[in-house]
Amino acid sequence: ARPRVGYFYSGKSPRALIAEELRKLRVKDVKAVPVVVREGTSVYDAVVTMFLEDVGTLIVVNEEGFLEGVISRKDLLKVTLGQTDIHKVPVSVMMTRMPNIITTFPEETVYMAAKKLIEHEVDALPVVRTLVDSEGKEKLEVVGRITKTHITRLFVELGEAE
Amino acid sequence: ARPRVGYFYSGKSPRALIAEELRKLRVKDVKAVPVVVREGTSVYDAVVTMFLEDVGTLIVVNEEGFLEGVISRKDLLKVTLGQTDIHKVPVSVMMTRMPNIITTFPEETVYMAAKKLIEHEVDALPVVRTLVDSEGKEKLEVVGRITKTHITRLFVELGEAE
Repeated sequence: ARPRVGYFYSGKSPRALIAEELRKLRVKDVKAVPVVVREGTSVYDAVVTMFLEDVGTLIVVNEEGFLEGVISRKDLLKVTLGQTDIHKVPVSVMMTRMPNIITTFPEETVYMAAKKLIEHEVDALPVVRTLVDSEGKEKLEVVGRITKTHITRLFVELGEAE
Repeated sequence: ARPRVGYFYSGKSPRALIAEELRKLRVKDVKAVPVVVREGTSVYDAVVTMFLEDVGTLIVVNEEGFLEGVISRKDLLKVTLGQTDIHKVPVSVMMTRMPNIITTFPEETVYMAAKKLIEHEVDALPVVRTLVDSEGKEKLEVVGRITKTHITRLFVELGEAE
């Protein structure tokens, strides 16, 4: 019997096909706007921003708007538990700094970004574009963020029947 | 020309095939052990447990071990910010209680669990089994937890070439 007209994936298992399709998705297709604060922002104001914007991770930028740090709900919870005066201490004291920040970029696959989230045990990645200044120094412009929530939402979308 | 030997999905697009495959995955295949505390646990001890166990959500059980509440890093951050004496106040004061807890069960699809995570804007779901006591009252036995981290890890596994 002749097969009916349809898609034909020669020699590929369903799982191999899924892997291939998933690897076509790019960070730029799912990223969200970054929620940023300045280095001098107090811990208290950072927590308030986190609640107002309803995000789990804040991206810290310097005065030129370039990536300086990342601070998570977990980092802030640790601080609020201690004796620190959260109205006075700035986020720069406990934020994760370069070169320890795990980043992604618009053209990277969502698969690779998800892999970074898992391997480095973080909830969010800043999406950056690398610029080189007149002195040849690299600067990271923050153009978005991608989180486990975005990956979960994508998983749901992929599970929707067409 | 005759198609070569291989998988043939009549009339199905790659995306429809992915949806079909994703919907075969069950919560019981990916769930992790639940991290639980008792209702009387202080906010302070809950935060410490959260750090020691490295989880973002704690499941609160009563003395019989049945589901009573859920408390997130976000809930705890809100409390530590206030004037509350976190050594004295128990988690039961600010936890989410039944019937407001969003749960899943071992046989549910991961797709449905992920959908609940997104729609109800929570980071984790307790995986429960429903028991009925001698008075006909339903009780929820906590058998696991599933989080956005698990969904993200699954996404990475699906993206691995075979």
